[in-house]
Formats: sequence, C-alpha cells, structure tokens
Amino acid sequence: PQIPYKGDNYPEEEMLERSRRFYEEMNKRRSIRLFSDRDVSLEVIKNVIKTAGTSPSGAHTEPWTFVVVRDTRVKRELREIIEDEERMNYQRRMGDKWLNDLKKLKTTWQKPYLETVPYIIIIFKQVHSISADGQKKPHYYSEISVSISAGILLASIQNAGLVTLISTPLNCGPKLRELLKRPPNEKVMMLLPIGYPTDDVTVPDLKRKPLDKIMFLV
Amino acid sequence: PQIPYKGDNYPEEEMLERSRRFYEEMNKRRSIRLFSDRDVSLEVIKNVIKTAGTSPSGAHTEPWTFVVVRDTRVKRELREIIEDEERMNYQRRMGDKWLNDLKKLKTTWQKPYLETVPYIIIIFKQVHSISADGQKKPHYYSEISVSISAGILLASIQNAGLVTLISTPLNCGPKLRELLKRPPNEKVMMLLPIGYPTDDVTVPDLKRKPLDKIMFLV
Ligand SMILES: Cc1cc2nc3c(=O)[nH]c(=O)nc-3n(C[C@H](O)[C@H](O)[C@H](O)COP(=O)(O)O)c2cc1C
Ligand SMILES: Cc1cc2nc3c(=O)[nH]c(=O)nc-3n(C[C@H](O)[C@H](O)[C@H](O)COP(=O)(O)O)c2cc1C
Repeated sequence: PQIPYKGDNYPEEEMLERSRRFYEEMNKRRSIRLFSDRDVSLEVIKNVIKTAGTSPSGAHTEPWTFVVVRDTRVKRELREIIEDEERMNYQRRMGDKWLNDLKKLKTTWQKPYLETVPYIIIIFKQVHSISADGQKKPHYYSEISVSISAGILLASIQNAGLVTLISTPLNCGPKLRELLKRPPNEKVMMLLPIGYPTDDVTVPDLKRKPLDKIMFLV
Repeated sequence: PQIPYKGDNYPEEEMLERSRRFYEEMNKRRSIRLFSDRDVSLEVIKNVIKTAGTSPSGAHTEPWTFVVVRDTRVKRELREIIEDEERMNYQRRMGDKWLNDLKKLKTTWQKPYLETVPYIIIIFKQVHSISADGQKKPHYYSEISVSISAGILLASIQNAGLVTLISTPLNCGPKLRELLKRPPNEKVMMLLPIGYPTDDVTVPDLKRKPLDKIMFLV
C-alpha cells in the first residue's frame, strides 16, 4: 500500500540559511584519534544509531547491524585483536606507498583510545538475510547502503557535539565477528570510537577541496 | 603540521535534545519518485554539495565528483540512456527474485522525473588520481568514502527541506561518463534527482526496523 507524503516547505531564504548552517556544522567535523574517558549518555548513543537506521537501502533491505561496545573487558580484547593485526598491516601488508600517503595523518598501529573511549560502534553489513521461509534473501548494494547509513550516523554524532573516527580494521573482521558473537552473514565494515576528545587534542592541518574541484555544473 | 581541535561542549540535556531532534528530522526522509518542476536555488545545491565534501575519506583522498545536471537537453539524453538500460535490466537482467523484492516499491524502468526535476546529481567515485609528478595515486576505500559522503549529502538535502532518491543506474556508467565528459578514472556510483515532490505524491508504506533489531549492546 501507498501512503501520502508531505514534504517541508521552507521559504527560499530559510532554506538557504538552513543549508548554510548545516554546512558550517558538518565542516567542523574532524577525525579524532585521542579520546577522553568522559562518559556519554547511552540515550544519545541510541538516538544516533536510530538516526543511522533511517538510511535508504537497496530494496529496503536495511542491511546494517550496529554493535555498541561499552564493557571494559570487551574493549580490551578488541584493542588486542586490532593492534595485533594493525602491527602486521603497518609492518608488512600496506606497502611503502600507502604508508607514505598516511604519513601526514601520523597514524600508527597503536590504538590506546580503544580502551579510554566510553563507546565503540562496530558496523556490520549483512550480505544476505534469511527470510521467514528459510530462504536466503540477497541484499542488493549492501556495502553502499551501510556506508550511506554510516554517513548519516556521522552527521548525527557531529550534530550532537560528540567526536569519532571512521576506521576500517583491515583483516580483523573474522576475529571481531567472533568476539562480538555475530552470525556469518554479517561482515565487519567499520569501527568508530565515540566520545569526547582530550582537552589538548590536535588534528592534522588538512585542507578540504574547494567546491570547484568537486562540483561540475552542466 | 598539527593544529589544536576544540569540540562542542553541550550540556547533557541539550545534547540529548539535539540528538532527538536530528533523529526526528532524518526519520521524515523518504525516497521520492515523483518530482514537481518547481525550481530550487542553485545556492542551496552548492551548499548541500559543499556539505558532502566535508566527509571523511580513506587517507584524505576525497575521491568524489558531483556532476550537477541542470540543462534540459542533457537531462533528456540522460533519461534516454537510463531508460534504455533499465528496460533491459527489468526485462532480462535482474531475475525474478530481485523483481519480486522490488514489487512493494512499485519501481519500473520508466523515469519521467528525470526530465521534470530541476537538478540531477550524478556521483562519481575516483578510483585513483594522478599526482603532480604524473604518478597514479591509489584511492583506498573509495567506494566506502563516496557512499559516506552520499549519506552526508542526503542528511543535508533532508535538512534543507528538499527531497531526493538514491538510485544506482545499473550498466549505465560508461555512457553517462561519456555524456558528462568525465575522465576514465571516474566511475558512476549513484544518481540523485533533487527538488520538490509533486503535491499528490505517495510513497510505499514501509516500516523501519526498531532499534532492538539494529543495535546490540555488549
Ligand atoms: C544503494 C541504493 C540503491 C538504490 N537504488 C534504487 C533504484 O535504482 N531505484 C529506486 O527506485 N530506488 C532505489 N533505492 C531506494 C530504495 O529503494 C529505498 O531507499 C528503500 O526502498 C527505502 O525507502 P526510503 O528511502 O523511503 O526509506 C536505492 C537505495 C540505495 C541505498
Ligand atoms: C573508509 C575510511 C576508512 C578510514 N580508515 C582509517 C583508519 O583505519 N585509521 C585512521 O586513523 N583513519 C581512518 N580514516 C579517517 C581518514 O584518515 C580521515 O577521514 C581523513 O584523513 C580526513 O580527515 P577528517 O576526517 O578529519 O576530515 C578513514 C576514513 C574513511 C572514510
């Protein structure tokens, strides 16, 4: 069945102003790699994940699972798994070119923030699901859909005044899936610590491309 | 070089309220497939694309290109390319299962909205770039990064009070790339009409998964 849809209808000046303010809010976002141990209300975490769950998805398959880690012991195990793999990634797997491209970011295999931060969100994509009659239901475009929902999650975290870091824990997928007891149809895609930055945190002095390098009007 | 970062610092009640309001705003979003020809200010389009350009990306490669189509003739050619392919997708390529999964959405190969809508955004991912010294620079995780930026774009379009539809024009990539004169390192990922819905538009009566089906706390 179909239902009517009523859109917003802002006067032009207000729409312009809203689009400008949202840009300014999002443009403040930076990837943070040093987190304070200051706690965050679980209600806020629930709201940002609910927001991510409003994302569109191919054929409305909603192929995302958000595991929120709050338990200290699980965080420690998670850190161990990730640092073990990241050490090998940095030392052997990524190659000189990749490492060189990362130099300006000053990233390393060490992730102490995984133990200080109040919450870690691990995002899984469901490559398929099982329907009521036991059939495999394919999830079209699941990787794109989950990444779009991660973008909406980021916008929501930024809007709440919290900080995060998107990371893709290379080669850690199977171990993390086991640690977090997720089924085999779910694959780890991203890992986001979420909380407050430390008071003295610094970030790489990156510039973003200007509009005329990313938008082309025809 | 590194620079200091100062985060927001909302009182807990305000953070909660902001996260709740943002959820409500995003939860109003629906994919729209019937657009009015009412015009939209180009400034707003520029702002939503600037906002998408604040997205994080693997090693800060910013691997996105947003082509904005306003020209009537280009829209017509674009529609022809897409309908030709979509007719074949629906008739021969997608298979019964996929078509069945799409039934509830009432989508077809016909896309008249591609000519009525004021703007169409085509999002390309750059699979690599060429550095100043002529070397190929790989773009790590470009598909994920571009999809995250599409998520931020959607949030921004919704916040401005406009509507859109994420679509993935299956098999149209090379022809669209040629029509829009983009270089070979850029691949079409998504296509988004953007504007106002028609007054009498309806949408499928879909439900979204509740929080306890998408979030798991450990
Ligand atoms: C990656 C992706 C590809 C999609 N492709 C199409 C498409 O080609 N045609 C279409 O009509 N809808 C497409 N959609 C829209 C979905 O059908 C829609 O998001 C889903 O049914 C949920 O509805 P909602 O967006 O109104 O919440 C796509 C969505 C995503 C995320
Ligand atoms: C798909 C993806 C994967 C990323 N992986 C990592 C990572 O593993 N480690 C890390 O420190 N940063 C990672 N980043 C963060 C980027 O380095 C960061 O977004 C980029 O340098 C731009 O900085 P900004 O987010 O502060 O604008 C990733 C970002 C994206 C989008």
